[in-house]
Amino acid sequence: MRNPLLAPDLRELVAEHNEAGLREFFTGHHPADSAELLDDLEPAEVLFVLNLLTGRERAAVFSYLEPPLQDGVGKLMERGALASLLTYMSHDERADLVSRLPDERVEQIMPLLAHAEREDIRTLASYREGTTGAVMTSDYATLPAEITAAQALDRLRHEAPDRETIYYCYVLDGERRIIGFVSLKDLILAPPSRPISQIMQTDVVSATVDEDRELAAQKLMEYDLIALPVVDAQGRLVGIVTHDDVIDVIVDEATEDVYRLGGIEPLGDSYLRTPFATLWGKRGLWLAILFFGGFLTTTVLAYYEPVFLELPALVMFMPLIISAGGNCGSQSATLITRALALGEVEPGDWLRVLWHEIWMGASLGLVLGLVGFLRAWITPTSALEGIDPVRLSLAVATGVAVVVLWGNLVGALLPLLLKRCGLDPALISNPVLASLVDVTGIVAYFVIAKALLLP
Amino acid sequence: MRNPLLAPDLRELVAEHNEAGLREFFTGHHPADSAELLDDLEPAEVLFVLNLLTGRERAAVFSYLEPPLQDGVGKLMERGALASLLTYMSHDERADLVSRLPDERVEQIMPLLAHAEREDIRTLASYREGTTGAVMTSDYATLPAEITAAQALDRLRHEAPDRETIYYCYVLDGERRIIGFVSLKDLILAPPSRPISQIMQTDVVSATVDEDRELAAQKLMEYDLIALPVVDAQGRLVGIVTHDDVIDVIVDEATEDVYRLGGIEPLGDSYLRTPFATLWGKRGLWLAILFFGGFLTTTVLAYYEPVFLELPALVMFMPLIISAGGNCGSQSATLITRALALGEVEPGDWLRVLWHEIWMGASLGLVLGLVGFLRAWITPTSALEGIDPVRLSLAVATGVAVVVLWGNLVGALLPLLLKRCGLDPALISNPVLASLVDVTGIVAYFVIAKALLLP
Repeated sequence: MRNPLLAPDLRELVAEHNEAGLREFFTGHHPADSAELLDDLEPAEVLFVLNLLTGRERAAVFSYLEPPLQDGVGKLMERGALASLLTYMSHDERADLVSRLPDERVEQIMPLLAHAEREDIRTLASYREGTTGAVMTSDYATLPAEITAAQALDRLRHEAPDRETIYYCYVLDGERRIIGFVSLKDLILAPPSRPISQIMQTDVVSATVDEDRELAAQKLMEYDLIALPVVDAQGRLVGIVTHDDVIDVIVDEATEDVYRLGGIEPLGDSYLRTPFATLWGKRGLWLAILFFGGFLTTTVLAYYEPVFLELPALVMFMPLIISAGGNCGSQSATLITRALALGEVEPGDWLRVLWHEIWMGASLGLVLGLVGFLRAWITPTSALEGIDPVRLSLAVATGVAVVVLWGNLVGALLPLLLKRCGLDPALISNPVLASLVDVTGIVAYFVIAKALLLP
Repeated sequence: MRNPLLAPDLRELVAEHNEAGLREFFTGHHPADSAELLDDLEPAEVLFVLNLLTGRERAAVFSYLEPPLQDGVGKLMERGALASLLTYMSHDERADLVSRLPDERVEQIMPLLAHAEREDIRTLASYREGTTGAVMTSDYATLPAEITAAQALDRLRHEAPDRETIYYCYVLDGERRIIGFVSLKDLILAPPSRPISQIMQTDVVSATVDEDRELAAQKLMEYDLIALPVVDAQGRLVGIVTHDDVIDVIVDEATEDVYRLGGIEPLGDSYLRTPFATLWGKRGLWLAILFFGGFLTTTVLAYYEPVFLELPALVMFMPLIISAGGNCGSQSATLITRALALGEVEPGDWLRVLWHEIWMGASLGLVLGLVGFLRAWITPTSALEGIDPVRLSLAVATGVAVVVLWGNLVGALLPLLLKRCGLDPALISNPVLASLVDVTGIVAYFVIAKALLLP
């Protein structure tokens, strides 16, 4: 288990180039823990430590390092050493590493790899980000249908150390299409002489290589699988997505949604590791869009200046009213965006959502409007500049109710519309929604106030 | 694989009480698919179908039904049938079901179960929601240290059908403390005569039963495990958390965070299935809190009424300025809340975050302030009611810059403070933050405007 107290000791051992001490230090650690300890060191120091480990250990620890540190160490490695590291790494992780290396570096290393590995890396690195192909590994186990359970176990004994998982083995036909799969559990439970064809399950759930990685993740989740096979357009097995990769996908997608809803372009790295300029750009982009959008509020208020010059008390309730609409809209936008992400709601459900949110917005708006009426009612008459308190309270109450209903509907329906247009529903972030409702809310409030208060 | 076209056929078969047809219909379907098809039927219809299946199949399909439907079917079942169903269900799922049943129903069923099962259900159902205990299963495989790999495989052959997973087997000492674990892969790869004590890995990562389920999920993720052992306060093995349960935890926690950030109390069920009144309450609670908070803006504006009576042009820029602060604050609150959830940032990092966000807020504020200056500068003089345009533009620019910097710091630091106090940082939702910044932003803007524009 990880121990933060170890880090200073490690730093000292590295500074002293104490090879024996370092070897002892890393013995018996889980590679994830070793990587965690190394994460604070400089790439050159990490390389020094990694060189003390055996090929397999080195690859295991390296795979757990954060990508920027992997890149830094990869840059310093002698090309033969880097090629050897790649042969020990899991297929999906080495493809990710290679796709991040500079082109000339890739050209140096590729000739040092066996033909099959080169092809494998090229294929895996070729899938577009966000597809199932980009998260799968080509490192799966297959079994022929005609051998027995005992023969299958024997075969796995020889192949297993090289496979990412042997808990599911796939049975293919002559064209590499999946005809069934066997779990290792079924294999062990079966009588040794029974052929695979009689043990295997034939109802195989699979993903296609170009499919959105979220869909693959949902399938693995729905069927509680350890791995999901991935097929190409011709239905041939090309890889598997394992449960740990699916967890990463789920966390990444949730993080993306949270960022988008907060009005930030997704970072792709952790908060503290993202460079200041990158973060500035990702935030500044949306802030600028929203700020320019906010100019509309100024334009609208310039138009209604005569109204609030005559009825200045209206100004006092303006922030209250537009923020109530924005809050209610944030809620419905959040609900619908999350329901879309979880597959609970489809764009085709818009009528049902509309109906639901009309009632929700109207009833919430009525209650808040009533509270708003009371708040306006108790305003000291001195501040009202001669306005009739009942009419003012009515204007505030109606303003609140209308803006809440409106914000609620905009928040519920816009994510559905975006999804229908093939865009990310989370683009209707809370700030975007608040800005939309600000402008329309100000207009609604002044229209209502004019009608009720001006002759 | 699921096929939406099947649902009408199924409805017809059920209506006709066509037992042979239904049996054929469900043969060869994955239990998850069968459950998906049944999800649209009434509890009585589902029960009719379930009764056609064998005990094991019935439990498998039942486990995949949505909890409210499980409850509906459970209510209709004869008590003997329900008790028999429980014996076939996985340990964690049956404990969840029992904890949702009415007390008198539980008292009817419990005497029909074997003592060990009764105890098991009672123990699992006793863990507080949100703890690791509440998501674990007691259905794990153990092996003695002294038997050989071949003997272990033989033993698993006899035990496996009853275990949730045999991919990891735990080795315990006389007090049920974990001394090691063996993966099924290692067991198969090992020479048949080698004792478990020489195959097992001794660096075991585990969770404790009272620990937050998120921590257990993070451990399983970090070490890419299929299952994580769970120990009690005395270090004795009491259960395991499997990869599929961890995925559910991760999705649930992400959904909770998204809801909180959008200003809604987490639902605990899907959007369309949550009753209207429940949803109304979960939304109304926060809307009411925020609405009462919004009264402060009215109070503050009443205080500054003399200022905007004299300088009405100030009103035009008020929504622009406070929304810029709210947007920037939403961004930093989202960033820090997510970073806290992912363990990338700790409350102890507050100084680093403060430093980072001072620069971020100041630089974003400066740029937006400059844009705001230009926007104010081009306002037609007719609308300015005699105010000096340069001084007004300066007031707007300074207002934007100060409110953006302020919103950014509030958004970044409040989640850290909440976390330090043991509360959920996501309570600083985007709407809460916007409301906080609204009030303080209005004050800041008017203080600046008074200083620059009034003699």
